[in-house]
Amino acid sequence: MTLPLSDRAQAMPASPIRKLAPYADQAKKEGVTVYHLNIGQPDVPSPQQFWDAIKNINLSVLEYSNSAGIAELREKAAADYRRQGIEVTADQVLITTAGSESLSIALSVICNAGDEVIIPEPLYANYIGFAAGTGIKVVPIPTYIESGFALPPSEEFERRITERTRAIVICNPGNPTGTTYSREQLDELLAIARKHDLYVIADEVYREFCYDGIRPVSVLQLENSDQNVIMVDSVSKKFSLCGARIGFFVTRNSDLMGPAIRFAQARLSSPTLEMMGVMAAYDTPASYFDELRAEYTKRRDLLISRLRAIPGVVCPDIQGAFYAMVRLPIDDSDKFCQWMLESFRHKNSTVMMAPGTGFYATPGSGKCEVRIAYVLNTEKIGLAMDCLEIALQQYPGRTNA
Amino acid sequence: MTLPLSDRAQAMPASPIRKLAPYADQAKKEGVTVYHLNIGQPDVPSPQQFWDAIKNINLSVLEYSNSAGIAELREKAAADYRRQGIEVTADQVLITTAGSESLSIALSVICNAGDEVIIPEPLYANYIGFAAGTGIKVVPIPTYIESGFALPPSEEFERRITERTRAIVICNPGNPTGTTYSREQLDELLAIARKHDLYVIADEVYREFCYDGIRPVSVLQLENSDQNVIMVDSVSKKFSLCGARIGFFVTRNSDLMGPAIRFAQARLSSPTLEMMGVMAAYDTPASYFDELRAEYTKRRDLLISRLRAIPGVVCPDIQGAFYAMVRLPIDDSDKFCQWMLESFRHKNSTVMMAPGTGFYATPGSGKCEVRIAYVLNTEKIGLAMDCLEIALQQYPGRTNA
Repeated sequence: MTLPLSDRAQAMPASPIRKLAPYADQAKKEGVTVYHLNIGQPDVPSPQQFWDAIKNINLSVLEYSNSAGIAELREKAAADYRRQGIEVTADQVLITTAGSESLSIALSVICNAGDEVIIPEPLYANYIGFAAGTGIKVVPIPTYIESGFALPPSEEFERRITERTRAIVICNPGNPTGTTYSREQLDELLAIARKHDLYVIADEVYREFCYDGIRPVSVLQLENSDQNVIMVDSVSKKFSLCGARIGFFVTRNSDLMGPAIRFAQARLSSPTLEMMGVMAAYDTPASYFDELRAEYTKRRDLLISRLRAIPGVVCPDIQGAFYAMVRLPIDDSDKFCQWMLESFRHKNSTVMMAPGTGFYATPGSGKCEVRIAYVLNTEKIGLAMDCLEIALQQYPGRTNA
Repeated sequence: MTLPLSDRAQAMPASPIRKLAPYADQAKKEGVTVYHLNIGQPDVPSPQQFWDAIKNINLSVLEYSNSAGIAELREKAAADYRRQGIEVTADQVLITTAGSESLSIALSVICNAGDEVIIPEPLYANYIGFAAGTGIKVVPIPTYIESGFALPPSEEFERRITERTRAIVICNPGNPTGTTYSREQLDELLAIARKHDLYVIADEVYREFCYDGIRPVSVLQLENSDQNVIMVDSVSKKFSLCGARIGFFVTRNSDLMGPAIRFAQARLSSPTLEMMGVMAAYDTPASYFDELRAEYTKRRDLLISRLRAIPGVVCPDIQGAFYAMVRLPIDDSDKFCQWMLESFRHKNSTVMMAPGTGFYATPGSGKCEVRIAYVLNTEKIGLAMDCLEIALQQYPGRTNA
């Protein structure tokens, strides 16, 4: 007897990043060094302020927190946004269990099952998962490596708007592309949303990771953004606290905040300890972020120069986040990434990357691309690029692109 | 301009427990002592092993954990279940972000929007929220205070099974009733599920809270429970770690575990620190639970005897959990609970309880009932009962029930 599963269970994709994990584990068992460029887990230490706060917690009972988040944390987050020029109050900031839950609440509050959201692709793989989990259809818009994965023109969005479209979802600075949108581009996007009564959901978790003096613009900084805009944020990247699972659902639209808080009430509370630690993390000095940007700039520069020196590799300019979506002279990125882990060794080491296919909602796209997360130090990135360069010479599925 | 919200946003109920919070806050501002019998937040200290582990964490980067949970925690949880006679392996235990997420994943994996789940009522209020969030219809079966909210007979379940029915959801020991089902009753329930190809989702988070020498039976201990059974569990009550947000999705049906893990991958990870603390909490000595049961038995006994001494109050027998669903001689439990906070004072104190209406999916039910959580020590329960007794004499909406 086999009992039925739901449609959403069957539609829920396996994580493109994690499906290669068994091959990486096997390589490590064999004593091989695996350079993990496959996941956005920074090696940067979490702020000392966070760790000190955790060690100094002196509670007897670890209680539920307010469903909307500890009030002081909401205040601190709002104050931090205002320092960055994003005008919000504490009651416009809902604390969520990471950016994941923020996005999931955003989609749930505005979309029925069967509704559509338009997302430029390549896109953050888990958007497909969240949409599947809530029965929502992802309508992708292609963007192109040749133009640095620039935001598509308005016509491309408008062509895809139907009766079922509820929102446009962007990630800025972008995962997996590193592309950062200008104020003008964002204004144009918001104008489309306003014209068609759509929401803009902007995943801005990489705001602190922007290079070359560029300051990313938040959708909440645009004129006329009160009604249509939801910002998704998280401490995962900002404070190198991926494991804390603390995020933010931010909007000035009070019609949205009420239902969002009711969704939060149903799951009772976000983790209390981590919220207490994050409150302290807001006292992290600005120098932490300056050092962060300096370090990532070095990593990015090395990565780009090494990649561009390999014949047949295309690496676009990258302004933000810590990913590069790269075209390789290969037949199939899933096969190639698996082959790297199973069959390729250089000085007893290899590289784990994320196959490009997982970052596209359009079937067949991304077969010649991989996402490389430059989350390791420059020495390791250099060694990883040595591997990649030699691997591309040896890979049986190499093409003459 | 008002942008549309989703149907689920509009269906998502406000928490029946939290909607009274502003009145309680106001009373406290006025210097009034409020006895919180409204929420299942025990006052019992979390295990010292948990706190020691948290203080001894020596990490630099707080990283993502495995989406299915830290492997060692899955092992420890499975070993703990086996000690209790529940035969499961680590790969049949998925770590979730609290029992809330476990239930939400369970519903999502087996139900499409529009599908139905049958739940005896009164029921845990947040079941209505999770169902609303995932577009699932709750089909309640009434149970009755006169028979201690006993599980309804098979015919009552079978009458309600339709083409859209996917599962029967139970909470055992029960929130809000404290009722604990016998092995025979559970066998009968599983037989219905097997006959109609339904799942049984059993919320067993109160397993450790069972009195008078009764040992609750898990659905996973029943014969033939491999395919049809999902157990929802959590550390919130067991280890008095409500704020940790660590739970368990447990099933021996491997067809379910695969999709459940893909749902978990989409949200990346549960909170890492709290998982590390919970691993240590499993070393809590058995005496902790013995003392817990002894303490709650005292509280329950006092509560029942005080309630039954108040004219017009009906309090059934309670075998487990730490709630009593009580009938009061009142016109409207929402009005009464609000009146207690706004207008009633005895020795400058009052009591906060959860109105019964929030625990029913059937509109109009629960108007003469309140849920009382006996999560305070006997001295405070005594003082709270003094308040309640006098309040029932003074309440303008008192009935002659």
